[in-house]
Amino acid sequence: MKACGLIVEYNPFHNGHLYHVNEAKETTQADCMIAVMSGSFLQRGEPAIIDKFHRTKAALKSGVDLLVELPYAYAVQSSRYFAKGALLTLDALKTNYVCFGSESGDIEQFYKGVEQRQAKKELYDETIQSFLQSGLSFPLASQQAYEAIGLSELDLFQPNNILGFSYVNTIVEENLPIKARTIKRKSSHYHDDEIDSSIASATSIRKELTNGQLSSKAKNALPDATVQELESYRKKASVWHDWEDYFPLLHYRITTMTREELASIHGVDEGIEGRLISTINGAHSFADLIEKMKTKRYTYVRLQRMFTHILTNTTKVEIAGFFSFASLPYVRLLGMTKRGQEYLNESKKSRTVPLVSNLNHKQKTLYLDERALHVYYSVLPVEKRLALRKQEFQLPIIL
Amino acid sequence: MKACGLIVEYNPFHNGHLYHVNEAKETTQADCMIAVMSGSFLQRGEPAIIDKFHRTKAALKSGVDLLVELPYAYAVQSSRYFAKGALLTLDALKTNYVCFGSESGDIEQFYKGVEQRQAKKELYDETIQSFLQSGLSFPLASQQAYEAIGLSELDLFQPNNILGFSYVNTIVEENLPIKARTIKRKSSHYHDDEIDSSIASATSIRKELTNGQLSSKAKNALPDATVQELESYRKKASVWHDWEDYFPLLHYRITTMTREELASIHGVDEGIEGRLISTINGAHSFADLIEKMKTKRYTYVRLQRMFTHILTNTTKVEIAGFFSFASLPYVRLLGMTKRGQEYLNESKKSRTVPLVSNLNHKQKTLYLDERALHVYYSVLPVEKRLALRKQEFQLPIIL
Repeated sequence: MKACGLIVEYNPFHNGHLYHVNEAKETTQADCMIAVMSGSFLQRGEPAIIDKFHRTKAALKSGVDLLVELPYAYAVQSSRYFAKGALLTLDALKTNYVCFGSESGDIEQFYKGVEQRQAKKELYDETIQSFLQSGLSFPLASQQAYEAIGLSELDLFQPNNILGFSYVNTIVEENLPIKARTIKRKSSHYHDDEIDSSIASATSIRKELTNGQLSSKAKNALPDATVQELESYRKKASVWHDWEDYFPLLHYRITTMTREELASIHGVDEGIEGRLISTINGAHSFADLIEKMKTKRYTYVRLQRMFTHILTNTTKVEIAGFFSFASLPYVRLLGMTKRGQEYLNESKKSRTVPLVSNLNHKQKTLYLDERALHVYYSVLPVEKRLALRKQEFQLPIIL
Repeated sequence: MKACGLIVEYNPFHNGHLYHVNEAKETTQADCMIAVMSGSFLQRGEPAIIDKFHRTKAALKSGVDLLVELPYAYAVQSSRYFAKGALLTLDALKTNYVCFGSESGDIEQFYKGVEQRQAKKELYDETIQSFLQSGLSFPLASQQAYEAIGLSELDLFQPNNILGFSYVNTIVEENLPIKARTIKRKSSHYHDDEIDSSIASATSIRKELTNGQLSSKAKNALPDATVQELESYRKKASVWHDWEDYFPLLHYRITTMTREELASIHGVDEGIEGRLISTINGAHSFADLIEKMKTKRYTYVRLQRMFTHILTNTTKVEIAGFFSFASLPYVRLLGMTKRGQEYLNESKKSRTVPLVSNLNHKQKTLYLDERALHVYYSVLPVEKRLALRKQEFQLPIIL
């Protein structure tokens, strides 16, 4: 069996994702579609709208055969680490392809771009350093660096091109036996606010979900399975998760930490803890806090990631410890179809990374993911929290 | 002017406290009544029902002339440290007397008891150690030790006698120029559940306050000023504080701490962190958690204190740091009458400990109290929290 990997968040799984799954299958002619998905908190430093188990079910019902979790240590990170974690996971599962959506749609542009950067690595590094020193954020500095080395064909101002570039770069750098493929995205802009057809961005769909109701616009952009899982989760948890739900916990946490503790947290850098301590008490909401903390260098997303790490109490030492393993310490299985199960059986002998199906396997390194899920559920009423947490100890979902 | 000190929690100030203030004034013929009061969290490891500012106002309206805060590091502690902090504070204010309520009512019994214990210190210490080693809690072990040294007159099974004994013991041990006096308590049992007259225990009164309403029984046991302050606080904060309000924060906190972090917290001893980690996830409420954690050695109150320190993130190192000062680092002024103000002016020259009137004086050692108040308010809706916190930066209450 041949497998194709997808790197996803499914927040929530929508018609654009469905198109992606089908096109990827078509393009690669793979027998098994494997998705590596962020768990409780996402790459932009946000809680997922519903838990990883319900997002898994929605995806399994829509054509994905196997879902595994991207470890927290890689998931809530800049694109470089996010990409590395995702590709190491796909490699651990012996995936033949990775297929990503991009604004470009031409895989040659990506391979060529990575090659160009490697050839001009010194100039690239120097340029990025000088722009960082001038106070630019990392994403802006790297764009300047790409311009400096004359990366002309691939437009690295497009968010999905940037991610794709990180994927291909990781494959080349880590020398992984995975072939990259790309599909031109139907909805070209990730940040589109308007839902104008059956393909809409996850951002625009989430905006239609704020009052506990799915608008008809939202339903139009989602497979039935997703609608079901969104409604089912809402019933069980009584919320769709949003950063503002966590603001009381974040405020509590920051105001009870010493300056030294704050500085020990992953993502709290360059003395920002001082500004944080003086800002937190006047903040009226999470949005207000971010607005007051934002600078050219500390972008919205960088701050959101930092706040996620503060909330989960993830230290620099813990992240460094996780990254110090020679290979991935585990792959956490979330769910599979019969076909996914067959694939796992078939690939068993060639796999070396342990597969963890639930928390009954006491894998010490799972600790960060476990903690993230604790935090994720901590905004629920206690009985709902206790009921949902049981999913951690059940067998993976099999459809 | 002569001053008499009272060691109080006023949770809330009731007719028994009023009786105590008046009798203490009568007994000592003091001109100024000074109360040293626990702030946000109390000696039994519980949040106060309303904040320290509103409790201060109620007391000032009922005959107390000056209220200062017992620092958190002394307030949420066993009676020995609680007593020491309170008496050092009263001494810093050059108080002539301390007058406490007791079941005994005879001050000679206390002085004699302290003398007896000092004379048989070795036997006392040996007995207490052997009973602690056999698994008894500290309060029970010390009662056994008192029996062993033949402390016959003073009944140290009575909670207010125990506290009074600690006060007198501190005065003798620290050689403080404070004269102790005692008043026989009207309501003899601290833990009485029933309100049967206009004198009722704070415990029984709090039970009448659970639904946001003051019952007529409760009103009967409270001065009007207290009723006003309880209602005023309820309007501003929308809660009367109870441990259960803090359970979601406590659960969040414990589930995001490493075992090492837990063990660093003041009061987390003898490896109890292991049991805590395995128990926290099954707990349905704070009461349920305590019930599941309770042992002969880890009593209800000891656990409540431990949970308060976890909630406020107070480490062993921080407490040790606070206690390492040669004298009290500050006295925090909460409020005063004109008479209290006169007393402060008059005693100014003989005082050496700095008086802090609000958080605008950046006194570094106030940090633990500030944090405790942050935690205390953290269960309020954000706008109410922001409004109430402003009290920290205002001048002390003057009536």
